[in-house]
Amino acid sequence: MSFGNHEVMSNPRADRVRDVARLSTAKERSKRGEFLAEGPQAIREALRRHHALEAAGEPGIVQAVYATSVGLDRLDELNDLRNRPLVREVTPEVLIAMADTVTPQGMVAVCRTETISIEELVARKPKLIAVLCRVQDPGNAGTILRAADAAGADALIITSESVDIFNPKAVRSTVGSLFHVPVATGVSVTDLAAVFGPAGIQILAADGYGSLDLDELQEESVRRRWLTSSESAPDAGGGAEEGGVVVLDNPTAWLFGNEARGLSEEELALSDARVAVPLYGIAESLNVGTAATVCLYASARAQRRANK
Amino acid sequence: MSFGNHEVMSNPRADRVRDVARLSTAKERSKRGEFLAEGPQAIREALRRHHALEAAGEPGIVQAVYATSVGLDRLDELNDLRNRPLVREVTPEVLIAMADTVTPQGMVAVCRTETISIEELVARKPKLIAVLCRVQDPGNAGTILRAADAAGADALIITSESVDIFNPKAVRSTVGSLFHVPVATGVSVTDLAAVFGPAGIQILAADGYGSLDLDELQEESVRRRWLTSSESAPDAGGGAEEGGVVVLDNPTAWLFGNEARGLSEEELALSDARVAVPLYGIAESLNVGTAATVCLYASARAQRRANK
Repeated sequence: MSFGNHEVMSNPRADRVRDVARLSTAKERSKRGEFLAEGPQAIREALRRHHALEAAGEPGIVQAVYATSVGLDRLDELNDLRNRPLVREVTPEVLIAMADTVTPQGMVAVCRTETISIEELVARKPKLIAVLCRVQDPGNAGTILRAADAAGADALIITSESVDIFNPKAVRSTVGSLFHVPVATGVSVTDLAAVFGPAGIQILAADGYGSLDLDELQEESVRRRWLTSSESAPDAGGGAEEGGVVVLDNPTAWLFGNEARGLSEEELALSDARVAVPLYGIAESLNVGTAATVCLYASARAQRRANK
Repeated sequence: MSFGNHEVMSNPRADRVRDVARLSTAKERSKRGEFLAEGPQAIREALRRHHALEAAGEPGIVQAVYATSVGLDRLDELNDLRNRPLVREVTPEVLIAMADTVTPQGMVAVCRTETISIEELVARKPKLIAVLCRVQDPGNAGTILRAADAAGADALIITSESVDIFNPKAVRSTVGSLFHVPVATGVSVTDLAAVFGPAGIQILAADGYGSLDLDELQEESVRRRWLTSSESAPDAGGGAEEGGVVVLDNPTAWLFGNEARGLSEEELALSDARVAVPLYGIAESLNVGTAATVCLYASARAQRRANK
């Protein structure tokens, strides 16, 4: 199947092919404001986002889709007439030359990096935000973005010294969530704290050495609702909310730190509280992706229950 | 530093080196009942387990440690007199020839695969068990084992068609948890169900299409405790426990399915209930490691609270 008036691209050494392949480097991505999405699942989500933006009168994010004849048949959306101007058929050799993966499953897309500023984010009155502080592994970053999406988070913020979330490996591990959750990049925690405090967004540090226990906070969150909903509910005694500081139901930005070293002293100092995911076994620590999942779900659960 | 009377092993083509390297294949691991642990963190945990077994009068699990001179200096435990008979110094070339990773961080250890039977497990009256049903990715299997360890699970069960947890990549991603949590392998879900039912262990299927919502079950678990602890607590109406079936506090085996296809019809049918981790955002599904973390922590929280 062929699209538009284009011929099949067959020269792996063509300039356009090299241009696409160069998006595997952070420098080129940053310079051009573009990145590479690979495989049907990511490209389907990219096209959804693209059409949603266009429907709202804004520029789309998909600049071009390159697919082999097998790839074209695999993705229904590519057969949609709207997409035809975006699609170029390529030979398998060209696709391999463009892609970061050995098996890009028949297609890659060049997408515009879409990010929001902290100010735009705060204006949307977010309830739940994940902040990556010097997270280095692209797989971890992608996993956390996917968990943030599942937990219904309003944004992912990536501080300046973290891995590039538009890195091909990170994009792959988000499994499309990169096109669901707004992303802010290149931010410092100091800037965040200056904006979040006045906006009523508490900053919680996910910290294995934290003095607050996440499970205690979750229990407190349920207890508070009971106390509010019924005067006859038993008063189980003091708790985290008594000091008026940490209530999981409140708008929250969670800070997640570097894989080896955790959060820095400065990041901890800028937080409203340090919260530990309890370790019930012999494990000395949790993978940052695992810890982030537990923390984000705890907040999502408390917030959604509070609004019932 | 050198140990015992041995000379430094320097021939990467020696039979003993090849024997160690062959542990990268599942066939060889299965035949010899041995596997390879790489790097200081895994080997430290392996030696802890080894000494704990020996202290209990049982055979240890570490058969041999091979370390470069740099590696020997890195791990305090290796300098312990008890370990000297286990340790052989090798050249960096020999270590690379033995190891699965390019950078084994100065040391590898040949360990005995230690597994338990379902009968032994049930005799220990377990409260929380993770079951991998056809999980294929070694990184996912390792991540789930690490999360199971953190949540204080009593065992990991791996059904016959799953990835080998003693695969070097899986061992690496457990970050030592393989030496903390008892593992049962080669089991069928049918066999499990036959033993767990009479033992009072409920089987919960982690299933995105499940009719029960994990967050509802967690809420129910808190409510039940309140109702028990105080007659004046408000009755919030019927809930999951009313039917007497699913209470998170009960001894539980969680089934986690294949990355692409989830749990089979047979596995679902053998379960007491299908429980979904709620998806609050746009994500269509959760990574199996993420879902497992949320489920295991939900059970651990409910069980530990119930026993307070």
